[in-house]
Parts: sequence; C-alpha cells; structure tokens
Amino acid sequence: MSGTTGDCVVVIGAGLVGASIGMALVAAGYRVHLRDQVSSHAKVAASLGAGTTEKASPGEVSLAIVAVPPASLAKAILGALERYPQAVVTDVGSVKGAVLAELVASGADVSRYVGSHPMAGSQHAGPLTSRPDLFVDRTWVVTPHATSLPEAVARVEKLAADCGGRVVVMAAAEHDEAVAQVSHLPQLMSSLTAGRLVDVPAEHLRLAGQEIRDVTRLAGSAPDLWQQIVAANAEAVRTELLAVQHALAGLVAVLDDPEAVREFIARGRQGTRALPGKHGHRATDFAHVVVEIPDAPGSLARLFTEIGEAGVNVEDVTIEHDEAREVGYLWLSVTPDRAPQVAATMRDRGWSVRQ
Amino acid sequence: MSGTTGDCVVVIGAGLVGASIGMALVAAGYRVHLRDQVSSHAKVAASLGAGTTEKASPGEVSLAIVAVPPASLAKAILGALERYPQAVVTDVGSVKGAVLAELVASGADVSRYVGSHPMAGSQHAGPLTSRPDLFVDRTWVVTPHATSLPEAVARVEKLAADCGGRVVVMAAAEHDEAVAQVSHLPQLMSSLTAGRLVDVPAEHLRLAGQEIRDVTRLAGSAPDLWQQIVAANAEAVRTELLAVQHALAGLVAVLDDPEAVREFIARGRQGTRALPGKHGHRATDFAHVVVEIPDAPGSLARLFTEIGEAGVNVEDVTIEHDEAREVGYLWLSVTPDRAPQVAATMRDRGWSVRQ
Repeated sequence: MSGTTGDCVVVIGAGLVGASIGMALVAAGYRVHLRDQVSSHAKVAASLGAGTTEKASPGEVSLAIVAVPPASLAKAILGALERYPQAVVTDVGSVKGAVLAELVASGADVSRYVGSHPMAGSQHAGPLTSRPDLFVDRTWVVTPHATSLPEAVARVEKLAADCGGRVVVMAAAEHDEAVAQVSHLPQLMSSLTAGRLVDVPAEHLRLAGQEIRDVTRLAGSAPDLWQQIVAANAEAVRTELLAVQHALAGLVAVLDDPEAVREFIARGRQGTRALPGKHGHRATDFAHVVVEIPDAPGSLARLFTEIGEAGVNVEDVTIEHDEAREVGYLWLSVTPDRAPQVAATMRDRGWSVRQ
Repeated sequence: MSGTTGDCVVVIGAGLVGASIGMALVAAGYRVHLRDQVSSHAKVAASLGAGTTEKASPGEVSLAIVAVPPASLAKAILGALERYPQAVVTDVGSVKGAVLAELVASGADVSRYVGSHPMAGSQHAGPLTSRPDLFVDRTWVVTPHATSLPEAVARVEKLAADCGGRVVVMAAAEHDEAVAQVSHLPQLMSSLTAGRLVDVPAEHLRLAGQEIRDVTRLAGSAPDLWQQIVAANAEAVRTELLAVQHALAGLVAVLDDPEAVREFIARGRQGTRALPGKHGHRATDFAHVVVEIPDAPGSLARLFTEIGEAGVNVEDVTIEHDEAREVGYLWLSVTPDRAPQVAATMRDRGWSVRQ
C-alpha cells in the first residue's frame, strides 16, 4: 500500500478514464499494467503510453483501479481483491451506493476497497481520446465506507493527487445525490432536447448554431453506459426529474406572461452563477478597475493588448453608462490583490482611471 | 441599393451582433455609421473598429441594419425606412413573423424592408465580445415577404455574403418554426436545467464538471432579451415545450425499465447525429481507411503525428476488434476523395493497412 514511485499498479478497463489514469501514473513514475476484456483497447492504450499489456505478478500489485462499465463493477472489484492480495482496490464508477451495497452483500472482506469517482470524462468513450491531464484540477471524489482501512483511504487519495485531481471526501449516498443533480440530470436533459431533433425537418436543422450543439453535446454519449448509470442511481435521478417536470409545467402555464417568463430565465441564470467559477472565485469576489471609454478607432483594442502585456488576468469586462455626463466606463474585474497594480499600470499608460 | 465598396451603411444598435456586422463591413470596405440608444455602446463598438459614431447623411445611406432588442424592432425598422429614403432596411431579429405583422399592420410601404437573421451570437451581449468573423460560415436566413422588392432581397443577401455567412432563403413563418426547434427550445431547456441548481447545496456543486457547464451555458443569457424572443414566438415555442413535456413524462414512467432508458438515450444520440456536421457532411458520407493496431509504446502517437504531417483531416477514429484473430484495427474516417491517398501514405510509412 506504499504508493511510491516504481510501485506496480493495475488498471482494469482501458477506456477513456482507465487509459487516462494509466498515462498520468506512467508520467508519475509508476509501473502500470493494463487489462481489458477487449484486448484492442488495452493495446491502443498501451500504444498511447498508458502502460504495458504484459501481466503483473499478483503479489507485487499495490493498487488496482477498476474502470469497467457500471454493471460489471462489483464483480470486477471482488475479483481484484481476490487476485491481488496486497493491493488497495478502488473503482472510478459514476454511482457509488449500489456497488457498495453489492460488495457488502457478498460477505467478502472489503476493507481494502475504497470507492472513488474522478469528475472528468466526456461524451467520448474508449482509449483513443484519453490524455494524461484529464484529471488535472478536476474534483476527484473519494468515498470511504464503514470498514475501509485508513491506509487504503489515504492510498486512494494519493492516487487522485498523483493524477492532478482535487480530493473531496464524501459518503457514497451523498455522492450519488450530488451526481444525480450535477451530472445525471444534465445528461438526461441533453438527451431530451436532442431527442426532439429526430422529428425536425432537415431544412430546419440548417439553422442550428453553436447553442444547440452545446446543449446536446452530452446526448452523444453511449446509451449502454447511461442505461447502467441511471439504473444504478434511479431513485436520486427520479427526484431530479420530478423537480424538473414540475418546473417545466410551470413554464408552460405562464408562457403568455412575459414577466413570469423573464423570471424563469433569470432563475436559470442564477443557477449558472451558483456553479464555482474559474479558480473557485465567485463574481462578487472581484475588485473593479474602472477605465473611461475613449472615442477613437482602435483604442480599446490597444487597451486590451496593453492589459495582456501587463500580464493581468481580467475575469470580466462590463460597460457602465453615465447618461447625465454622456460618458461611458469599462469595468475591468480582477482579483482584489491585483487591482492596485492594474490601476497604476493603466494610469501610467495614459488611460483615465476612476477609483 | 448598390452595395459596392465605399457605400454608406448604418448599423442601428451596437450590441454583439450589430458591432460584429460593423466590423465585418468595415473590413469589406464600407463606410459604417453606428447608432445606439446607449451612446457608450456605439463608442465601444467604434473604438473596436466597427465604424464611426458620426452621423450619416440620410440621403447617402444605401443600407440600414436594425440590430435592436426584439420588442423595439418594428418601430426602429419603420423609423429607418422613413429616415433613409434611399436605403434598403433589414433587421437581425431572432423572430420574423411578429415583426412583419406589425410592419404590415402599420400601413407603411415596406417594400424596401427584407428581414434577416444571422444564426450567430452567444450567451454574451454588448459590443465588447464582438468580432468581425462572427458570421463566417454561419447560416444567415433571409426572409422576403409578399411586397419585398427583388433588388432589396438581393441587397440583403449580399450583406450576408459580405459578412461571410451562408444564405438560406425562407418564409418568416417557417423560419420561426425552425428557430423554436433549434434555438428557443434549447435555450429554455438550458434554463430549466440551470434553474434546478439554485436548490442544490454548494457542497454538491463542487462535483460539477464540464458537462453541466455545456448544458447550462446558454442559461447565462440575458433574461430581458429572452423574455422578448419567447413572447414574439410563443405559439411555436409552446408546440416544442409540449412535445418535450410528453417525452419527459415518458421517461419518468419507464425509469425502472433499463431497456426503455437505453432507447431514450439512443434517441437523443440519433438527434445529435441529425445535426449537420463539419462541412455539412454526415458520418455516413465518410470513407474508412483501416489500420492494424500496433502493440508498441508510442506507435499510435506516431501514427497520428504522421497523419497530421500528411495534411489529412481525419473526421473520426474508432476501434474495431476481431475476437477470433485477437487483433484490433483503427478505422480512420476521411472524405471519400482523400481515402486512396491516405491508404497509400500510411502503407508507404510502413503501417499495415486493410482495404
């Protein structure tokens, strides 16, 4: 259970997530062995640098990572616990409670097992789209259970850190409620929206822009995978769908009331702002440097170039208008620690800065 | 109505779309005059290179482009027809039927007016995010009406082409049905999904990945704008919402039936595939070059590098597995005209290519 460089690790399931973990661990200095029921997947992953397809010596394996489809998880985890007697075993499944219940029901000693779930992936599947930085700065949930050994929990937390992830520890049941809200519901809403396109005439689809592609991108995901995820988390998903069904009925009922429609859209915007932003900052955390808007061609383009040269990261820019003075201002949002420097730099370069 | 270089054009409303049109037309050699109720917007747009804030001589204006919020469109179009007696007048509003009905009801001669709708924009608003290539290769719908002059229609088609857009001519009513399907429904579904986040605990939101950000990106749009769009296209939007409401009730009813859930997800995937792809190709239009998967570290990375060096655009890559022979193949999807060259190039470089 050491987790030091050179340790022998097995990845079971060389799809997008498994192969990406392999790449990250190879880069971190581990010896990674890849297994997959479809041997081509393991070969592709190995060829892309995610490890070797040679078999590991079972007694040497200190960590086994199970990255197979949801319906096969419990069996694969129990198999790994038996096959690798010294290893900590984890999985990267999207739903934690159902698998844990199956493991406990099996009667096996599962103290070396600790569930985990890296919040990364995409609508793509298979090792071809894998990359070593898939997990960098992404949340990686670790879900210890009642009999998990403390050193096994620590080993799985180290795995997440070795892959660049940000560890969040959470009970399996709470994890499942959270992913129903932030992952499974969005998937089903994307599928719902995309399903409507089947009945839309091709001539009308020529008008499709980036927007519908954003909303329906997830709907391109593999039906077999999502069937298993929904089945494993059906009750939490049902709660979310009923809430959305209620809100949709509300919208249909008020469609002729412009103010109510505005409130519906505004509530959605409020929801997007509840999501953690870049670097975890909220919009309200920023300081503002206010620059008078010049009325000369190319001047703002020059302003943005100079901000870039000064190495300042501007998080947002908005326009404020003073009707009385017939003058306008740009509000540059920056982190509070940078604000004085930005104001000084802009003044030095001849811009009119309001404090 | 000439539309030749040096012509005088007025853009009314210097938001994202208006300012981006200004930039594109300045680049195409037109003299562009910008107007906006909020003078700072016109100043920002001018400063970014979208034209001048100086007034145009009304008699010189050959084209007026109205890019104001939906509720103000009819009044602004009638005002432009009166103010610029030689000009063709168009608008870039998201809904065409309601505005046209208002114009016809006014009793004015609207033969110099032709509606249009560039299918570009974003969840951002205002001139700060404008750019001259916003419309390049995007669909730009032109909606002539019963009394539109043919030369006015041609002038608006030329505007779309000057901005790099792809012209689609369509009646206003059909346009409105199409945008309800491919634009207004996705917006409302995005808002519906994001609205649910308001009730989700902050601890759970830490698990939010890229997926929910994709689905809810549109929900960040301006409530005031969307209130007006929905009001102007309420009946077509209602038809879409009722269809989705029906499909959602169907999903809730079958949530415990894995096969039915799989069909629901599969239908969504079918919908995403109905959207025109890159260059308008469908996946079925591609030819396949099949390469045997090598089992050596770095070999696939080298394959992709060599494909890149050969200047070949690979549209998709999938893995095929031959269980009996224990061997795997990569299917490279390319346009049919390139397939023989790709196969020859790969063979020359020592790859095992199956025909």
